[in-house]
Amino acid sequence: MASFKISDELIGRIETLIEEKNNHELTQLLGDLHYADIAEIIHELAIKDGVYIIRLIDAEKTSDVLTELDDDYRDKILENLSAKEIADELIELDTDDAVDIISELSEERKTEVISYIEDVEHAKDIVELLRYDDNTAGGLMAKELVKVNENWNVLKCVKEMREQAAYVTRVHSIYVVDDHDVLKGRLSLKDLLTTSTRSEVKDIYIPKVDYVYVTDTAEEVAHIMSKYDLEAIPVVDEMKRLVGRITIDDIVDVIKEGAEKDYQLAAGITNDVEADDSVWKLTLARLPWLLIGMFGGLGAASIINGFQDAMNKYPILLIFIPLIQATAGNVGVQSSAIVVQGLANNTIDGAIIKRLLKEFLLGLINGGTIAGIVILVSHFAFQAEYLVSITVAIALVTVIVNAAVIGTFIPILLHKRGIDPAVATGPFITTSNDVLGILIYFFIAKNILGF
Amino acid sequence: MASFKISDELIGRIETLIEEKNNHELTQLLGDLHYADIAEIIHELAIKDGVYIIRLIDAEKTSDVLTELDDDYRDKILENLSAKEIADELIELDTDDAVDIISELSEERKTEVISYIEDVEHAKDIVELLRYDDNTAGGLMAKELVKVNENWNVLKCVKEMREQAAYVTRVHSIYVVDDHDVLKGRLSLKDLLTTSTRSEVKDIYIPKVDYVYVTDTAEEVAHIMSKYDLEAIPVVDEMKRLVGRITIDDIVDVIKEGAEKDYQLAAGITNDVEADDSVWKLTLARLPWLLIGMFGGLGAASIINGFQDAMNKYPILLIFIPLIQATAGNVGVQSSAIVVQGLANNTIDGAIIKRLLKEFLLGLINGGTIAGIVILVSHFAFQAEYLVSITVAIALVTVIVNAAVIGTFIPILLHKRGIDPAVATGPFITTSNDVLGILIYFFIAKNILGF
Repeated sequence: MASFKISDELIGRIETLIEEKNNHELTQLLGDLHYADIAEIIHELAIKDGVYIIRLIDAEKTSDVLTELDDDYRDKILENLSAKEIADELIELDTDDAVDIISELSEERKTEVISYIEDVEHAKDIVELLRYDDNTAGGLMAKELVKVNENWNVLKCVKEMREQAAYVTRVHSIYVVDDHDVLKGRLSLKDLLTTSTRSEVKDIYIPKVDYVYVTDTAEEVAHIMSKYDLEAIPVVDEMKRLVGRITIDDIVDVIKEGAEKDYQLAAGITNDVEADDSVWKLTLARLPWLLIGMFGGLGAASIINGFQDAMNKYPILLIFIPLIQATAGNVGVQSSAIVVQGLANNTIDGAIIKRLLKEFLLGLINGGTIAGIVILVSHFAFQAEYLVSITVAIALVTVIVNAAVIGTFIPILLHKRGIDPAVATGPFITTSNDVLGILIYFFIAKNILGF
Repeated sequence: MASFKISDELIGRIETLIEEKNNHELTQLLGDLHYADIAEIIHELAIKDGVYIIRLIDAEKTSDVLTELDDDYRDKILENLSAKEIADELIELDTDDAVDIISELSEERKTEVISYIEDVEHAKDIVELLRYDDNTAGGLMAKELVKVNENWNVLKCVKEMREQAAYVTRVHSIYVVDDHDVLKGRLSLKDLLTTSTRSEVKDIYIPKVDYVYVTDTAEEVAHIMSKYDLEAIPVVDEMKRLVGRITIDDIVDVIKEGAEKDYQLAAGITNDVEADDSVWKLTLARLPWLLIGMFGGLGAASIINGFQDAMNKYPILLIFIPLIQATAGNVGVQSSAIVVQGLANNTIDGAIIKRLLKEFLLGLINGGTIAGIVILVSHFAFQAEYLVSITVAIALVTVIVNAAVIGTFIPILLHKRGIDPAVATGPFITTSNDVLGILIYFFIAKNILGF
């Protein structure tokens, strides 16, 4: 299947149809498309046209479209819909998706929307989910699941399940609970279909079941589900009562967003931005890191300025500043990226000291290689004095070892203190290594050349 | 559920039990653990101890353990197992996992292993899968799936499905094919259970079904499955015949690996390495990029060296080199990261020229802000001449705009030529922007200050 591609023609045609209010043709055209594709199209339209489409098409389809829209764009669409219209969309959705959509509304508006949801159970579930933090198992889970009581027999199970399944898009597992709703285990559909209808659930269920607590972080849930290849996992509260279920498609989003966030942090972009965002939003996300880099650069300037003597006596030292700086930056980013990824994958264990020693050794090997080449180039190509070449070589090795050790140490330290280690990657580590690298360079030069 | 954590005590105890050949206690201890956890434990053991555990525990469990091991470690384990032992493991696995395990063996060893697989159908399937490229839908798919013929009635379907389902770990969808095995659509389990047993499949199946071709890339499959929230997708050949099925858990791995690869490339790490790899392997992955950075640094050195006049007349120009360089590098990485991520998510469309203009504008805004601050600092803190401050400011804006445009343009160009744009991030873009930035700086200085 070729991946769906939006053409400018398609967008143009849809805009014309909206202008002409040709609802018949518009419904037909969009009716054939997947909701994810309609969402892609809407992103290319003006808000008022997006609202037009949402109003035109059945809530059954547009509710899914809404879940696919970018938060910013969706909030603008919602501003143009009445509370009743929003409620009609929510009714079509699983509780987790419904909560995602209304979580950004004002308290007042939320209350109004919920008052329009006639199905009291659905409304109750949404209100319950609203109180969980976005970034926890509670914030990810849906209330829709299939559960049976351990005291039921198979016949009753099948009957009850049929009813419950009507509300559940995909039945992954049948969970078994006791009279207090405490999670006891799970039932396989196969067993259920092949055992006598008189068997009791408590005799056939599988007591071994993976679960997470409502307060577990989204990252923990993602780690467990992907490690154990689970397609769904039940969520329990502090009393181990079954309160919800998380499915793998939500986890795919968590994994993608987590990877994107780390990537952006490493590249020095603070907010979650996309290429299509406004210049203003992109500036807000990019300028802060550039300013940090700027202060680093000014710091470096004042260090160099402080070594006026060196500048006068050995001007050739200055031509190697970019080399020292670039090398320090590159090594620091490499080291920190490996650690950050290891922390994200839970593969960093054992003593810190052992890891730092390893980076030290790595730094010596890489530094030695680079210093060796540079000493030759500096001697033959730049005709540098013997002692100057030695200075540059020793500085390079020191700077590389230092950057490797710092790049490894800082993320581990942040992680231990409960801070996301990814903030220590990118410009932050580059800038500090830049400044430190130049300081080391001049310090070594001063000692060897003695100015 | 708390995520499983390996303690040094546990590893020590297992090593002791292996030494004492206390198989009884070892089996009991490991029997309670999930295969993914056993794999984690084995990674901490010497190869011979890993082999001991694989031999000791049932193939039913160890086969899954093998699928979870790192490729390198697994290959070493396999070297210590006989062809017959490997075949016994493969028999327990789905075809896709079986193929993953033996794909790295020599042709001769593969043939020998396959000769020990008694189930001819299973062997045939494995041989078929072996010929697909790792990175395609064919390389990801399993042969295990549930399919029914459009000419069957529901009764026959249910009977056949029961048989097929015995070989399929998780039934996601029931695929409908014609007499030539051509994919026609899918059946919902619900419909099947609620229609009369005399109904014919052709009257009740859903003709709308997403699918991919065997030759589609893993990234395309991941994009489609995550965009459309699919938990499984059928794979067809050039004649649209149903040949396999890909499930979401395999895609989760593709997404994670893709994100990690991009992240590592951006950080200047060429091979897929982990923090725990050997110093040698880590050096091989890191040194190449550092050498590129080194040549960039030496290039910058020779540029500065070429402006001896400037160095003599305006030594203060030199103190701003780190600032110019760091800023160019940071901006380039930001711009390229945003484009690379947009390309990966298929959100980059429209004319290139529009995107470059936007980066140009962004560069002006960011550059203007930074230049404004720097002009003040250079005047008041460094007492630089009026013209020197102006030079630095103009150079900064030019360098920033240039880095932003290049950082945007190069990845798009690479992508258009079918090269992974992620190679253009990190040290590559940093280095070229460093060198170019310094060149621009001196060029502007020469024109303004006229040395």
